[in-house]
Amino acid sequence: MKILILGASGFLGSNLLEELVDDDKYYIITFDLGLRKVLKNLVKDNIKFYFGNFNNEKDIRNIFDSNDIHIVIHLISTTIPSTSNNDITHDIDSNLISTVRLLEIMREYKVLKIIFLSSGGTIYGIPENLPVMEEASTNPICSHGIVKLTIEKYILLYNYLYGFDYLILRVANLYGENHSSAELGLINVVLRKLIKNEDIKIWGDGSIIRDYVYVKDLTRIIKLLIEKNIWNQTLNIGTGEGHSINEILNLIRERINYFNVEYLSFRKFDIPNLVLSNTKLRSIIDFNFTHIEEGIIKTYNWIKKNV
Amino acid sequence: MKILILGASGFLGSNLLEELVDDDKYYIITFDLGLRKVLKNLVKDNIKFYFGNFNNEKDIRNIFDSNDIHIVIHLISTTIPSTSNNDITHDIDSNLISTVRLLEIMREYKVLKIIFLSSGGTIYGIPENLPVMEEASTNPICSHGIVKLTIEKYILLYNYLYGFDYLILRVANLYGENHSSAELGLINVVLRKLIKNEDIKIWGDGSIIRDYVYVKDLTRIIKLLIEKNIWNQTLNIGTGEGHSINEILNLIRERINYFNVEYLSFRKFDIPNLVLSNTKLRSIIDFNFTHIEEGIIKTYNWIKKNV
Repeated sequence: MKILILGASGFLGSNLLEELVDDDKYYIITFDLGLRKVLKNLVKDNIKFYFGNFNNEKDIRNIFDSNDIHIVIHLISTTIPSTSNNDITHDIDSNLISTVRLLEIMREYKVLKIIFLSSGGTIYGIPENLPVMEEASTNPICSHGIVKLTIEKYILLYNYLYGFDYLILRVANLYGENHSSAELGLINVVLRKLIKNEDIKIWGDGSIIRDYVYVKDLTRIIKLLIEKNIWNQTLNIGTGEGHSINEILNLIRERINYFNVEYLSFRKFDIPNLVLSNTKLRSIIDFNFTHIEEGIIKTYNWIKKNV
Repeated sequence: MKILILGASGFLGSNLLEELVDDDKYYIITFDLGLRKVLKNLVKDNIKFYFGNFNNEKDIRNIFDSNDIHIVIHLISTTIPSTSNNDITHDIDSNLISTVRLLEIMREYKVLKIIFLSSGGTIYGIPENLPVMEEASTNPICSHGIVKLTIEKYILLYNYLYGFDYLILRVANLYGENHSSAELGLINVVLRKLIKNEDIKIWGDGSIIRDYVYVKDLTRIIKLLIEKNIWNQTLNIGTGEGHSINEILNLIRERINYFNVEYLSFRKFDIPNLVLSNTKLRSIIDFNFTHIEEGIIKTYNWIKKNV
């Protein structure tokens, strides 16, 4: 089975690549701007690397021209929630329009299966109830979330009009191995700064609650969904359990090392509290999420080896 | 009060212009590609015409530079539901991105009131229940509807982030005076073809149900909402009553003249049945919709004078 991973060098992409290439029944075609350090040693017969720009139609078309792809896993995002409101037309242009072009190319090449990484953290806006169910209202308070939502709507349209099969995964806050962003992802950023002995700053008073998902849980879930041939589902990927930032900080202090934190002013585009219901996911696959303490220790050990 | 109408030469725009300029307390600034025949005789002191392209930022910026605007009424759409799926990137580019640019210009000039014409006919997709309430799920089956929905989300974002006041009007099927489209709008198209003795063709078997709103009802509603200073509402504008295409055809046959119809195959992007609930609208303003027979006769008389 030939799977194209768009954004294979990214945080989730590289973990997913590691998960899937271990199984010989998958042939993985990767696409990203370049090759990440963490992937340099990944030499396997069932993997083929493509490099290019997601916003360049030719680069994408080229992959479909030379490969008989079964599933596209679309993990690319050119924006992050916190800065997406600063240049909305760029967000729409580089994510939404490029994804519509991808769908059109897929349709042309009769590749009708897509797994799309949506954003459980931004798509619901300020939730009315916790944990948030998939049917909750969707009024994002950042452009990143609106664009993810709109891409979802176009995927549903292509399902209706052209018979596309889809999995839309609304993922909560990821943390774990292969993470490199300096801004995004509380657990990874704090652990890295702790190891490098850098100042740690938090937006707000640390009371905001998030649902932290260990990245390798998500890659196992994606593999399970593919293996069980589950399609045409919009699924929250969250543990169903919330932790405040201060709880996470204290957990790291207790289990790893003490550190001080500087609290900065609250940002208006940050959702106060967010926990995702995984009732729907659990009705489809049997899955136990990694405990937050175990995940943090694994992440810490990986960062220590890789800073 | 200075009101900018974007798309003032269009079907709804020209009716709204006629409604508002009659009242001296409004100063109307109009913007459209050109001046429509129906507006050529409209010479009033409280009206100023601008011409240009909505997709050209300079043309829009120019209006805000020279006028102290209080309310923007955004009626422009470059696509129609039936063909919007044929060129989705054009739909996104010319409607969504241009509207985001408009919101940015409004923000810059501190014009923080917008009335947006959304699409009650496409935004809900295939409704689960009739009549459709505003909280119903929104899964459009055409790009036109997805773009309208996405613009709604950005308007809500600008309300949240920058204090914009908005009215989002999800309007059902309009008919009435000043209509010119050859494709859109069953009642007008049939009446015009009947008068011109042209062949009348219908997509499907004529059983699909729609909610037909007389255009001058909508312009009165907009004026009422402005006068009552109602803001920050997403409202269905529908009569709450459905009529099948065949019912409409028979009504025209009975009241006006007999004609034959050719039935064509059903189109996949057409919603089977749609009636909009106006419970929310009626909770805000007291309003009686024009009876369909009366509206059809008025429309017929106008077309007869204007073909």
